[in-house]
Amino acid sequence: MKNFADLLCGKIAELNNPTVMGLDPKLEYIPQFIIDEAKENFPDDEEMAACEAIFEFNKALIDAVCDIIPAIKPQIAYYEMYGICGLEAFLETVDYAKSKGMVVITDAKRNDIGTTATAYAKALIGETEFLDSTKPVVDSDAVTVNGYLGTDGIKPFTDVCKEGGKGIFTLVRTSNPSAGDLQDLELKDGRKVYEAMADMVNEWGKDLVGESGFSSVGAVVGATWPEQAVDVRKRMPKTLILVPGYGAQGAGADAAVASFTADGKGSIVNASRSLMCAWKKREDLEPKDFAKATRDEAIDMRDKLNAALKDRKYV
Amino acid sequence: MKNFADLLCGKIAELNNPTVMGLDPKLEYIPQFIIDEAKENFPDDEEMAACEAIFEFNKALIDAVCDIIPAIKPQIAYYEMYGICGLEAFLETVDYAKSKGMVVITDAKRNDIGTTATAYAKALIGETEFLDSTKPVVDSDAVTVNGYLGTDGIKPFTDVCKEGGKGIFTLVRTSNPSAGDLQDLELKDGRKVYEAMADMVNEWGKDLVGESGFSSVGAVVGATWPEQAVDVRKRMPKTLILVPGYGAQGAGADAAVASFTADGKGSIVNASRSLMCAWKKREDLEPKDFAKATRDEAIDMRDKLNAALKDRKYV
Repeated sequence: MKNFADLLCGKIAELNNPTVMGLDPKLEYIPQFIIDEAKENFPDDEEMAACEAIFEFNKALIDAVCDIIPAIKPQIAYYEMYGICGLEAFLETVDYAKSKGMVVITDAKRNDIGTTATAYAKALIGETEFLDSTKPVVDSDAVTVNGYLGTDGIKPFTDVCKEGGKGIFTLVRTSNPSAGDLQDLELKDGRKVYEAMADMVNEWGKDLVGESGFSSVGAVVGATWPEQAVDVRKRMPKTLILVPGYGAQGAGADAAVASFTADGKGSIVNASRSLMCAWKKREDLEPKDFAKATRDEAIDMRDKLNAALKDRKYV
Repeated sequence: MKNFADLLCGKIAELNNPTVMGLDPKLEYIPQFIIDEAKENFPDDEEMAACEAIFEFNKALIDAVCDIIPAIKPQIAYYEMYGICGLEAFLETVDYAKSKGMVVITDAKRNDIGTTATAYAKALIGETEFLDSTKPVVDSDAVTVNGYLGTDGIKPFTDVCKEGGKGIFTLVRTSNPSAGDLQDLELKDGRKVYEAMADMVNEWGKDLVGESGFSSVGAVVGATWPEQAVDVRKRMPKTLILVPGYGAQGAGADAAVASFTADGKGSIVNASRSLMCAWKKREDLEPKDFAKATRDEAIDMRDKLNAALKDRKYV
């Protein structure tokens, strides 16, 4: 039976690379020649031009890394920001990455009460009933969610995961500087809020453990907090962990691998800006070779993560 | 200077009605004749037909209540579920409600780290930089957000609120049965998690208090938990409170007004299904008069809320 954790773990093992490429396409990340070409193609429609530039940029990055990196994580905010055309660029990006064999994790951090959570789950990892047929709207393999609303806000997602072999990643300890404002508050029972969330995630995932030994109910634990990452791994031994914060957000490979299991599995490290904007640091390359810079950075990141897994600093 | 709290409080006072109509358009809520008409208009495109039916339904409901109800709250999940066409129906709904003088609160519960929160804020209540110009994508007046990520995940939204006179509502105590799983956990300092969130919301809103005496940084506090609503109002004396849970989710008018200030202000009660599906309970009306059922229900709800405000059960 199809299981998201098995799909992702299999792909990580196949490529020997626990990396996911974040695709958060700000226009300023895109080489000017791509924007100029898009403007030529849509001289009277700056929205279509912007979104064509975004998709062409994403497509080139996917082509450059699809044999090295197992998954992409498009952050949907950067597409929503461009309206209808932006959503089209998002859907094209998802479909293109899937056609290249990549796993797609939509970063949407959705959350709501039960009936509405069902609508989000259908939209992002399930199928929508239209008037005459039922079909997927976004063909992603997993979606990030926020568990502040508790169990009945998550169950609609896990139900859809069960039906279609999909996955979720619930925010546990985020990578931002203010993460601790709420997440680090200490509870009467001695746990912190993020530990209580980790315990819930562990519970929510019990029915969705695959042959890989990991559950399709994953967690988000920022690389910027390696001590907390070591802590939550103990609380969630079978949880897939998505690790943002590597590279531009400040964490290095040693911190990024803190949440991996003792045998170096079960987590995947995201890099967005450091991969997408790698070309900006490469004076030796022409702008048209921007994707080569991303490929080189991807290889470097893979090798650094694997080296860090051989010599663990945080355990 | 434009201030969202003043806009909403002014409109509530003008219509003497602290109600917001949730527009969460499932196809099963829509009378069959509207769906049949949409199918005739788009015989070969069930997606366009579904979304036309949604917009025509919303439009009729807005026409029926815009002189009674001050605001709508479209829940974006129900539009995202229908993909590109769904997003078009959402944008048309927002624009139509605004053209009728209604305040628009987009229910999206967005949340992310700073840079991405900025993208969401631009998308939903701000303006996006395209290639040659900067313009709004969604012209809503306010958006719901989730504060699990802490201060730096909210500040990008409050920055946009300041610039454009917009507002946010942060989840504090949600209306769903499992709300307490995380939100009711007791902290070492004696507060509960939702109280800690309320205290942060109170702090985040201090710079955005308008002439109405309320802040454009609002909170979501479910009508299904009136004791908690009384408690959080004390912690957030100047916070606008959005109250879901009335009607179909089980709360009556007495519980729904628990978070209003002593002089009956500062909160707005949402009803979605009970307004949208009012026609299903009216055997005396023809299906084509569905909107009249919503209008009657809106008047009944307004009168019940005002009566409950005169004789408070929860204080």
